[in-house]
Amino acid sequence: MKLLIINGPNLNMLGVREPEVYDSRSYEDLVRYIEEFAGKNMIEADIYQSNSEGALIDKIHTALGSCDGIIINPGAYTHYSYALHDAIKATGIDAIEVHLTNIAAREEFRRRSVVAPACAGQISGFGFEVYTLAMRYFIERTLSRA
Amino acid sequence: MKLLIINGPNLNMLGVREPEVYDSRSYEDLVRYIEEFAGKNMIEADIYQSNSEGALIDKIHTALGSCDGIIINPGAYTHYSYALHDAIKATGIDAIEVHLTNIAAREEFRRRSVVAPACAGQISGFGFEVYTLAMRYFIERTLSRA
Amino acid sequence: MKLLIINGPNLNMLGVREPEVYDSRSYEDLVRYIEEFAGKNMIEADIYQSNSEGALIDKIHTALGSCDGIIINPGAYTHYSYALHDAIKATGIDAIEVHLTNIAAREEFRRRSVVAPACAGQISGFGFEVYTLAMRYFIERTLSRA
Amino acid sequence: MKLLIINGPNLNMLGVREPEVYDSRSYEDLVRYIEEFAGKNMIEADIYQSNSEGALIDKIHTALGSCDGIIINPGAYTHYSYALHDAIKATGIDAIEVHLTNIAAREEFRRRSVVAPACAGQISGFGFEVYTLAMRYFIERTLSRA
Amino acid sequence: MKLLIINGPNLNMLGVREPEVYDSRSYEDLVRYIEEFAGKNMIEADIYQSNSEGALIDKIHTALGSCDGIIINPGAYTHYSYALHDAIKATGIDAIEVHLTNIAAREEFRRRSVVAPACAGQISGFGFEVYTLAMRYFIERTLSRA
Amino acid sequence: MKLLIINGPNLNMLGVREPEVYDSRSYEDLVRYIEEFAGKNMIEADIYQSNSEGALIDKIHTALGSCDGIIINPGAYTHYSYALHDAIKATGIDAIEVHLTNIAAREEFRRRSVVAPACAGQISGFGFEVYTLAMRYFIERTLSRA
Amino acid sequence: MKLLIINGPNLNMLGVREPEVYDSRSYEDLVRYIEEFAGKNMIEADIYQSNSEGALIDKIHTALGSCDGIIINPGAYTHYSYALHDAIKATGIDAIEVHLTNIAAREEFRRRSVVAPACAGQISGFGFEVYTLAMRYFIERTLSRA
Amino acid sequence: MKLLIINGPNLNMLGVREPEVYDSRSYEDLVRYIEEFAGKNMIEADIYQSNSEGALIDKIHTALGSCDGIIINPGAYTHYSYALHDAIKATGIDAIEVHLTNIAAREEFRRRSVVAPACAGQISGFGFEVYTLAMRYFIERTLSRA
Amino acid sequence: MKLLIINGPNLNMLGVREPEVYDSRSYEDLVRYIEEFAGKNMIEADIYQSNSEGALIDKIHTALGSCDGIIINPGAYTHYSYALHDAIKATGIDAIEVHLTNIAAREEFRRRSVVAPACAGQISGFGFEVYTLAMRYFIERTLSRA
Amino acid sequence: MKLLIINGPNLNMLGVREPEVYDSRSYEDLVRYIEEFAGKNMIEADIYQSNSEGALIDKIHTALGSCDGIIINPGAYTHYSYALHDAIKATGIDAIEVHLTNIAAREEFRRRSVVAPACAGQISGFGFEVYTLAMRYFIERTLSRA
Amino acid sequence: MKLLIINGPNLNMLGVREPEVYDSRSYEDLVRYIEEFAGKNMIEADIYQSNSEGALIDKIHTALGSCDGIIINPGAYTHYSYALHDAIKATGIDAIEVHLTNIAAREEFRRRSVVAPACAGQISGFGFEVYTLAMRYFIERTLSRA
Amino acid sequence: MKLLIINGPNLNMLGVREPEVYDSRSYEDLVRYIEEFAGKNMIEADIYQSNSEGALIDKIHTALGSCDGIIINPGAYTHYSYALHDAIKATGIDAIEVHLTNIAAREEFRRRSVVAPACAGQISGFGFEVYTLAMRYFIERTLSRA
Repeated sequence: MKLLIINGPNLNMLGVREPEVYDSRSYEDLVRYIEEFAGKNMIEADIYQSNSEGALIDKIHTALGSCDGIIINPGAYTHYSYALHDAIKATGIDAIEVHLTNIAAREEFRRRSVVAPACAGQISGFGFEVYTLAMRYFIERTLSRA
Repeated sequence: MKLLIINGPNLNMLGVREPEVYDSRSYEDLVRYIEEFAGKNMIEADIYQSNSEGALIDKIHTALGSCDGIIINPGAYTHYSYALHDAIKATGIDAIEVHLTNIAAREEFRRRSVVAPACAGQISGFGFEVYTLAMRYFIERTLSRA
Repeated sequence: MKLLIINGPNLNMLGVREPEVYDSRSYEDLVRYIEEFAGKNMIEADIYQSNSEGALIDKIHTALGSCDGIIINPGAYTHYSYALHDAIKATGIDAIEVHLTNIAAREEFRRRSVVAPACAGQISGFGFEVYTLAMRYFIERTLSRA
Repeated sequence: MKLLIINGPNLNMLGVREPEVYDSRSYEDLVRYIEEFAGKNMIEADIYQSNSEGALIDKIHTALGSCDGIIINPGAYTHYSYALHDAIKATGIDAIEVHLTNIAAREEFRRRSVVAPACAGQISGFGFEVYTLAMRYFIERTLSRA
Repeated sequence: MKLLIINGPNLNMLGVREPEVYDSRSYEDLVRYIEEFAGKNMIEADIYQSNSEGALIDKIHTALGSCDGIIINPGAYTHYSYALHDAIKATGIDAIEVHLTNIAAREEFRRRSVVAPACAGQISGFGFEVYTLAMRYFIERTLSRA
Repeated sequence: MKLLIINGPNLNMLGVREPEVYDSRSYEDLVRYIEEFAGKNMIEADIYQSNSEGALIDKIHTALGSCDGIIINPGAYTHYSYALHDAIKATGIDAIEVHLTNIAAREEFRRRSVVAPACAGQISGFGFEVYTLAMRYFIERTLSRA
Repeated sequence: MKLLIINGPNLNMLGVREPEVYDSRSYEDLVRYIEEFAGKNMIEADIYQSNSEGALIDKIHTALGSCDGIIINPGAYTHYSYALHDAIKATGIDAIEVHLTNIAAREEFRRRSVVAPACAGQISGFGFEVYTLAMRYFIERTLSRA
Repeated sequence: MKLLIINGPNLNMLGVREPEVYDSRSYEDLVRYIEEFAGKNMIEADIYQSNSEGALIDKIHTALGSCDGIIINPGAYTHYSYALHDAIKATGIDAIEVHLTNIAAREEFRRRSVVAPACAGQISGFGFEVYTLAMRYFIERTLSRA
Repeated sequence: MKLLIINGPNLNMLGVREPEVYDSRSYEDLVRYIEEFAGKNMIEADIYQSNSEGALIDKIHTALGSCDGIIINPGAYTHYSYALHDAIKATGIDAIEVHLTNIAAREEFRRRSVVAPACAGQISGFGFEVYTLAMRYFIERTLSRA
Repeated sequence: MKLLIINGPNLNMLGVREPEVYDSRSYEDLVRYIEEFAGKNMIEADIYQSNSEGALIDKIHTALGSCDGIIINPGAYTHYSYALHDAIKATGIDAIEVHLTNIAAREEFRRRSVVAPACAGQISGFGFEVYTLAMRYFIERTLSRA
Repeated sequence: MKLLIINGPNLNMLGVREPEVYDSRSYEDLVRYIEEFAGKNMIEADIYQSNSEGALIDKIHTALGSCDGIIINPGAYTHYSYALHDAIKATGIDAIEVHLTNIAAREEFRRRSVVAPACAGQISGFGFEVYTLAMRYFIERTLSRA
Repeated sequence: MKLLIINGPNLNMLGVREPEVYDSRSYEDLVRYIEEFAGKNMIEADIYQSNSEGALIDKIHTALGSCDGIIINPGAYTHYSYALHDAIKATGIDAIEVHLTNIAAREEFRRRSVVAPACAGQISGFGFEVYTLAMRYFIERTLSRA
């Protein structure tokens, strides 16, 4: 199974950026964390980070015909990028929106996602583990379809 | 580890209620599904369903001093029960809000949760599996603390 | 034909509660009024009143497989109980929302019903007679289907 | 008893207009349906349809001193015609607003009536029968006053 | 000086319509009141009433090239008729919006005029006298220009 | 091909009404402009103007069974006439909303059309040419269906 | 007859302040204009200007038992001074709100008056003449009561 | 004098629930505190706590004919329970809404009470003492009526 | 103990101003009522009334270093004076906002206080007694700290 | 005549992306369609697509001094890219906003364009033909200026 | 060059008022800080502080004909004083609004200024230095005009 | 001292873009203007312009560990780029938002900045000089810390 894992703006600053809100581990730690879990579970994880909305859209389009699922942490684009919403819908692939923090408990503007309506579901608030929980969903889906 | 698993109004109608939106399996199936996973993972799951906001609050209060975590599917109370929000906060226990469907993609009124800000996180949109994903979070938390 | 007739919070106070707004007859008078009409028209009327949202939901669920229609006066729950909305939808039974007063002409908060979108229709503003008009609808429906 | 029965814009297109939403019977069928019921119940029904807001107002004014009640289906004027609201109030006659469909369950803009606050009540969502239910109300009112 | 005096929907019901809010004198009394003042002040008053938005617009258009000013009481159209707004602007003639009652002190929806921005000014709240005050303005304007 | 071309309130004032906003040519010029283009392209154009919402609805209804398309410039009714919206939907005929000016760049209230959701498309902002562009659409549609 | 004529903030800058919006005549000119008209009509005019909300309230209170009417131009306080609203109501004296400009045609914030609901009426948009029109109202009132 | 003292959802968690926001004393301490003051002042205090909206309504109804006043701390129901609002109004008894904390200084959703409009007054923000201040009001009322 | 007691705009009109809403006793009666209670309870009450927002702020500042508490009835300034809010916060002294009437049950604009978030609490709706209840709070606070 | 034709995010997915909403033909088909029409009409069409807001802005800037008009389909950026709005204004070149679908009839968020106010007009809802209609506008403009 | 430097409500409490938000230096320190900088740069600074909106307006008016610029820190009046807005506009003098704190990062109500639209610019968030930065602007303006 | 000076979308069009709103000098002039001032004040200015939100974020990240301050003119991104807001916060470096024009006095959408809450302050409305005023702030900060 191949999964596209998309990380949006400022996630490359993990560990540096407000560690009391996010995490003290770095983005490289996150990549390693995901790859380790993916490796153990026979998932080919194509992990991609960009601060550019356009680059994120370009990458999402590549999933068509090559990936079985998308895990996306749209960062702040969560709250206004209807273009990312359309990009996910355009691929027709199951996607899961993830957030390291519980966006429901933060500033007002972070409470609404314009991307989530294009996804199959949303997981927020558990730190790095949102990525493994999302990968587990795709593993289970594969098993239940087998 | 002991977890309190709370199911709110109308979840007892699972399988009967709009099966095209929710699931064709019954509430009893859900309970069995949760118990099976819990059993395999050494979780004592106290599963409770009620249509009464007050009864749900009473039950949540019992978690104090007896449970290690709360998984709550507040049903339609998600969208207006500030009392459930306060009940979870009052226990001081980590809680996860779960939804069988992706509430971000449904009617406008289902898009905002007044309960989630009192939780550690939210998982929505994967059917029965939201419960196992939530339990996995508590398993991982235990491991990482050990 | 069997109909479930649900009366929500504070309707037990009829006659006592602001008689200039509602009615000077008591809740018992209302029950008798409904039963008299039902008796004459071969309707088995299961009349239920509760101030508890949960109890109302429990009762609505019982209609599944036993009743041919629901008449509901949700009282103040009309304006915020999405749980009642879901309960009616869960049964899949035709329901009619009734109000003794013309809610469109009262306080702003009484003008919107969150329950009505789950119903087949709404009758408001004629006093006790909203119940008989609603019952007549079910009688006509039966005739037209025969 | 004489009743003025007012039908607003586009009701003349009944049967033609979105029959899956409204009804497959024509406006003439509706008129016959009303007249039949009226005839049986000794009601003189003055049935009037116009697409013009001004003509509807003119007609409503004629009710003063000649009619015992008004039944009005304001069509789309329901949602913005404060002039119709004022016209009904100006006559001082009891009026009932009716709708063939359950406006609470349709587009957002159809959920609020600016005409209903000038009426004694509102009946919506039962197809042609909303007219007979409204006429029954006036019959009962006459009986109870006798 | 010739003035067009436009009266909108339901003003023909004056005296009949909620006399405690408006006035107990009839529309004919109003016309006589205006004509008397006009006669004394050498004003040719073209007084027109209609309940039809379209007829009011048609009449306003006739003012172009024939009238020196417009006095308009748009009745309930005040609150939504952008078409009347455009009609006045289209003539390019000075207009004054008048209201028998103080619309600022009534229902919320009566507090905003969409017609007034197309006028030179607004007079509200003095009963019949709003018409003579408006006429006085045109008299003064003529004098000051002379 | 026969097209119904509907012009709403105040369009008869073209050339007179704010020529710096609209156009210095008259409504007669517009009619000639449309007819000339229609003549060259074998379109039978039924051009109708009225300031009355009701008359516009009546006319739209006549298109049923006689016209292949509707071009409508609803003037200020664009912004509140849900009745025109319903009238177009009732005919089931393809309609195009046109505006001489770019309504997106004018007053706030002109930015939203309640009529456009009932149309196949919208063309705004090019002066008289919006009519010929709309006619071209119907020509192309005919060709592509042939 | 004695009238209190209240002018609010920045009216002392008349002639200086944006003469293209207001007037090129000075505040002294306005006072003279009012006094001249008052003198001719046997009105004792107590004209008062202050930029201080508190001073305006103090002055309004003095009208109790000494004045027959109040004419008030609240300047920018029009839009937020609920205290002025209460002050007028506290005296129980008939008041008229006046504005030199047509506030309905200016910035959004100038379109709503929180003072007007405490008045008997409002006159706006005619320049200095709003004061004489208001005085005429009080003259007429006196005559009609005599 | 007999007073009904109603405590809503989560107040049973006092001392446990966010002691930095509420109080470190327990609900039992609150009951004792109230009873002590009541005892000294010849008040029979019927103190009731429930997490159930329905149970609170039931209890409020019992006050009719048996109590001289109601003191109610509706907890989170303050912000959405129109049913409690109606329950208090239905009894026709003087009620005082109390809050341990200053709700005006907390989260946005806590700033508006839908229950208070049905009460005679509101006291918030003084900890336990809001109950004694409310009782003092009823003592004074009794004295002043004597 | 010394308390500053601040009364805002129009309170000097007590007894005169809408006695059916407020009280038929005068402001002097209120002052005497407060002083009598203060005298009996060894409170030095510095009672101040002004209609000027600036004067009220000046007075509040004087409390710093001289008073043990502030009781403030901001009158209509309650609803917009962020400057009073800041003034109270600037002193750092415990303040209580009081209102003679239950502002939650009056006009919409009176329901929100922008001053209360700067206070320790709020008492509204009991007439003159709100002042003695507030003073009692300060007495109790002193006792509990002793 | 040279025209810049800008296509925004996700338009490269045409044919793939929700073909029931958009079109089953591919983006390459669209390019060919435009070029064919351009070729026949002596238009040099510079067609550009990017998913990046920044790249779109860069490209728009190049039009200055080299193009006679801009046709832009901003995709989802339509609804929030004030930067595109500014980019078009910065060039001072006539631009037309086009949409393949009738955005007025889709999700709420698609109904408002923040780009259109910077354009000369807008054409939406006719599929590929919106591009040819827009090109025709520029052809006509050229002719009428000649 | 002469500058009027206006400080609004509560600024006299500097150092006392929430020093963690504002500054621990006093208002006298601020005055000295401004005067020192002014002295060095040949600016005659007329520094004025008042808590009264009216007094601030009076002072602003004096600038006409005597000052070359205005620097204003309107304190909490920033958020509602349209009267200050009008006062600045009335003088026609360049003004700069300054704030010691970054109002964009504080409570919601502090984020909008109704005074700033009447100014040439705004500087916020740098403590005392906002005054010197504003003075520098006027120095540069003088130089560039020389 | 090293400062990062970020210029957002469309600033490269300076001089070309609406010179009556912005400035008639070009972007190159702005760069020279900044460099000249920086040179004289021993500031190393890293000046960067891009129309791409992603590129701006990338550049802001580079400031971490290399710059002492950030000056940012986010152009139209000011009004919706929560990603820029997060990028600035992620670096933890003091930033100042600058605007050439007084955004408070322009279109409604330009009045709110979503970036400013992540900054230390904001300077708007003085043309090129906003950059030098911002640099002066950093100079002063350095001095005061020395």
